[in-house]
Amino acid sequence: MKKVAVLGAGSWGTALSIVLADNSNEVRLWSHRQDQVNTINETHKNEKYLDVMLPEHIQAFYNLEEAINDVDAIIIVVPTKAIRDVCRQLNEIRKDDVTIIHAAKGIEPVTLKRVSQLISEELDGYKAEDIVVLSGPSHAEEVALRQPTTVTVSSMNIKNADFAQDLFINESFRVYTSPDILGIELGGALKNIIALGAGISDGLGYGDNAKAALITRGLAEIARLGTSLGANPLSFLGLPGVGDLIVTCTSEHSRNWRAGNLLGKGYKLDDVLEQMGMVVEGVRTVKAAHQFAADQDVEMPITTGIHQILFDELEPKEVVEQLMNRNKREEMDDLAQLLTERYSQ
Amino acid sequence: MKKVAVLGAGSWGTALSIVLADNSNEVRLWSHRQDQVNTINETHKNEKYLDVMLPEHIQAFYNLEEAINDVDAIIIVVPTKAIRDVCRQLNEIRKDDVTIIHAAKGIEPVTLKRVSQLISEELDGYKAEDIVVLSGPSHAEEVALRQPTTVTVSSMNIKNADFAQDLFINESFRVYTSPDILGIELGGALKNIIALGAGISDGLGYGDNAKAALITRGLAEIARLGTSLGANPLSFLGLPGVGDLIVTCTSEHSRNWRAGNLLGKGYKLDDVLEQMGMVVEGVRTVKAAHQFAADQDVEMPITTGIHQILFDELEPKEVVEQLMNRNKREEMDDLAQLLTERYSQ
Repeated sequence: MKKVAVLGAGSWGTALSIVLADNSNEVRLWSHRQDQVNTINETHKNEKYLDVMLPEHIQAFYNLEEAINDVDAIIIVVPTKAIRDVCRQLNEIRKDDVTIIHAAKGIEPVTLKRVSQLISEELDGYKAEDIVVLSGPSHAEEVALRQPTTVTVSSMNIKNADFAQDLFINESFRVYTSPDILGIELGGALKNIIALGAGISDGLGYGDNAKAALITRGLAEIARLGTSLGANPLSFLGLPGVGDLIVTCTSEHSRNWRAGNLLGKGYKLDDVLEQMGMVVEGVRTVKAAHQFAADQDVEMPITTGIHQILFDELEPKEVVEQLMNRNKREEMDDLAQLLTERYSQ
Repeated sequence: MKKVAVLGAGSWGTALSIVLADNSNEVRLWSHRQDQVNTINETHKNEKYLDVMLPEHIQAFYNLEEAINDVDAIIIVVPTKAIRDVCRQLNEIRKDDVTIIHAAKGIEPVTLKRVSQLISEELDGYKAEDIVVLSGPSHAEEVALRQPTTVTVSSMNIKNADFAQDLFINESFRVYTSPDILGIELGGALKNIIALGAGISDGLGYGDNAKAALITRGLAEIARLGTSLGANPLSFLGLPGVGDLIVTCTSEHSRNWRAGNLLGKGYKLDDVLEQMGMVVEGVRTVKAAHQFAADQDVEMPITTGIHQILFDELEPKEVVEQLMNRNKREEMDDLAQLLTERYSQ
């Protein structure tokens, strides 16, 4: 049995707390909202996010210092834009070295940094190579119901990755390892762009054929950007790539898909975000990826189209037609080129 | 305007006829059932398969000789098990050389041959390299409604592939080309195995996380078999691979998914096939792939599991649990190896 602090009591943080509690760990679930902490401790429920009873050895904390006191690991599951702030708070109070695992799926706009980079920049005494990421095709709602789920943990520090694997793995939650943290973090973040696109396609009333084309071409596109940033293109074909893309693009559980769906139905971005009432990571990720694509001259037609819908108020229908009518007639040229470049050296 | 014969008046043959008719071609749709021919010609509908009005310049034929008289191309869209027989009938009556395009998704059990191989073996005067395959993520129902759809045509004979691309391409039906006919045919056939598996998972009541894991690991598995047969592993990442896999595994339109779903709910294979009343290519493909995997020592745990459900009457739940609990903890080893082998030479 280990003591683990989970920072962030949204749906994913809560679901991961359930996995850790099922594995007989002592779990401290930290939230920055006192009312949520009280509700969780009094009712053993976190109803806004997950409609299940929480195991009794999940205890919620409002005081961060108490939450992380004497823990073996800290799991960071806050939105990407809150990562730096949480790390600064940790610096004020942290006493011991513990394993840091994050499960956030985003990229910081402007700096284009991944979450493990943000953590290592802010958190005193931690190098990026020691941070672990956990990612994969996993709706929190299903994890909470102990439905079969597979995820990948990755760190350049193999010992830390193995520790994270042992901490989370159980009969219904299978944990694989991968050495490519760059690919795992980028896959998890960039797939949200394509999920927005899939939602837009569905919102416009297009069918499965159109969505499958979008997902397939989107996969090539995010692999292209990821590889140009140094990721292994193969990571985009595994659980945190193809797998996560499928789950996020084909399910109404996904908040990025839901946001896209509303956009496809004609709502404007501000209305959509207000209606959602939760963080939609994909919106910030579109901005980051679009900026990168422009800077580095990487071709990302789907991301560009979604950026136009989000920030230039272009009509979704117009953008989809523009994508369908691109004069591009040979398939697989991009991924083939990426892989050839990588493996022919 | 060209004259085109479409052999096979199921849902896919009918949908492709609509595309060809929209492109102003004269379309002869051949069926071996006189009553179906009469209904199509009298009502301009083929209701058992598609709930749309057919363009008037689609004419149905019961007489094969009349159907193919003076045509520029023959599109073969019959079930895989009927391919040899149709080719033999063509030999009796065919006068001119025409471009042969097929859109069947299967492998012949025992011989393990692809459809283009079957056609070239049977059809006098045709080499396998001249045959064209058309494949991709495409529910016939959506194509019939002119929903945006993308497919790939492939032939070793580039002139023939370009001809097929020009014949089918239009604003809502985008056609890409690929040189890897082996990968395109195998991807289209083998994905039906995974679609059965996805249906079984859904039928058992598992969620999106489980299905995404199955599809992702299934993709690695069919790419492994395909590559061992000489296909380019990248073909499994394009529209006829990942794309078709997504469409087939996540939609209730797919008859392979529907058959799997019934199996997951506890029906036995014979009952399922009777209830479906249509050809379920995946069942024969499981047999073919399983046989190949055993012969060639290729590891295909998902295919093996589905084979056990179909033919050994193992309980689906038992098979899924066995797959979830395989002691396999590093991801991407298989595809990485395939690609490394291919590109490091």
